Amino acid sequence: MPPRKASVEFWFDFASTYSYPAAMRVEEAADRYGCSVKWRPFLLGPIFQQQGWTDSPFNIYPVKGRYMWRDLERLCAALRLPFHKPSEFPRRGLPATRIACAHAAKEWMPEFARRVYRANFSEDLDIAESGVLLDCLSGLVGDPAAVLSASRNPEAKAWVRHNTERAIALGIFGAPTFVAGEELFWGNDRLEAAMEWGKTK
Amino acid sequence: MPPRKASVEFWFDFASTYSYPAAMRVEEAADRYGCSVKWRPFLLGPIFQQQGWTDSPFNIYPVKGRYMWRDLERLCAALRLPFHKPSEFPRRGLPATRIACAHAAKEWMPEFARRVYRANFSEDLDIAESGVLLDCLSGLVGDPAAVLSASRNPEAKAWVRHNTERAIALGIFGAPTFVAGEELFWGNDRLEAAMEWGKTK
Repeated sequence: MPPRKASVEFWFDFASTYSYPAAMRVEEAADRYGCSVKWRPFLLGPIFQQQGWTDSPFNIYPVKGRYMWRDLERLCAALRLPFHKPSEFPRRGLPATRIACAHAAKEWMPEFARRVYRANFSEDLDIAESGVLLDCLSGLVGDPAAVLSASRNPEAKAWVRHNTERAIALGIFGAPTFVAGEELFWGNDRLEAAMEWGKTK
Repeated sequence: MPPRKASVEFWFDFASTYSYPAAMRVEEAADRYGCSVKWRPFLLGPIFQQQGWTDSPFNIYPVKGRYMWRDLERLCAALRLPFHKPSEFPRRGLPATRIACAHAAKEWMPEFARRVYRANFSEDLDIAESGVLLDCLSGLVGDPAAVLSASRNPEAKAWVRHNTERAIALGIFGAPTFVAGEELFWGNDRLEAAMEWGKTK
């Protein structure tokens, strides 16, 4: 039997800008380090609210926001990822988060997540819209409409709450965050450090 | 004549935690990329105050602060840099900043800056104390007491103000920040990206 791969948790929020490049490259990076990835969708909104913020800090602090957009554009260019600054920010990620949480263990979930990120940060689409979510599910599940409809059930909502509460309990305060063993690594920049830590545990 | 090296500005604040590893490795990284470094001391305090913060965000948001200290410890271990969490944070960096600003073009300034960082983040010393600053100047200048005393002159204070205002004008909101051409790179993590950018300009 081959040795069991070390797994690294990837905590992401669909509205989070730096989660976009992280989502697009996390699987390839994990492969390189011999790790596996556990995708963990959650909501940053309630965490920001606990800190007294009712909007993204990138909107509250415009100087920081200006830097972030330029940095993200530069980063995506270096990674050859398509990027188009969303005309609305932050977009409402809750409906997509419900789908991802309700199907966290499914093999298709990471691909669904990547499509939602692409819709938000490259196609400038409203990821809260049913039509956009149906397109993101298309070809991944037998009945996209049923999956979308089921994501409005109390169980899906409970999973979102559960994940977000777990994120808070872990000390997560931003996205993306990687968890390797007992250690947190915050930011797309720290993806490699997390994998490096993960593989030696 | 050898081609003139591209220069990258290194903006640092003596109380800033991630500026410590950046200060210790910036010259070596610049060498590797064929760049030169311009050391730019400034004060983050007035910038934070403009954002409505009267303390370090790492103190205002304890969850973020807890992460930062663990992350810094881990980072210093990986870089084999001595680290001891300062018993006081943030320390008052103004007196050291005056010295660094008044002697910004001197060859010994980077070594002085590294000693101040070591005092703060590895020796747990109060970098606002004259005795500590005299030790940091020792062997670098002929008359440390005269340099310390001159740093209380209006000209030195004006340089600190000037640098901090230039930082604000550049859109700097945190430290360390690297400036390569027209581009900002924020954070110790982005040192290599800044050098990469700098060398191609």
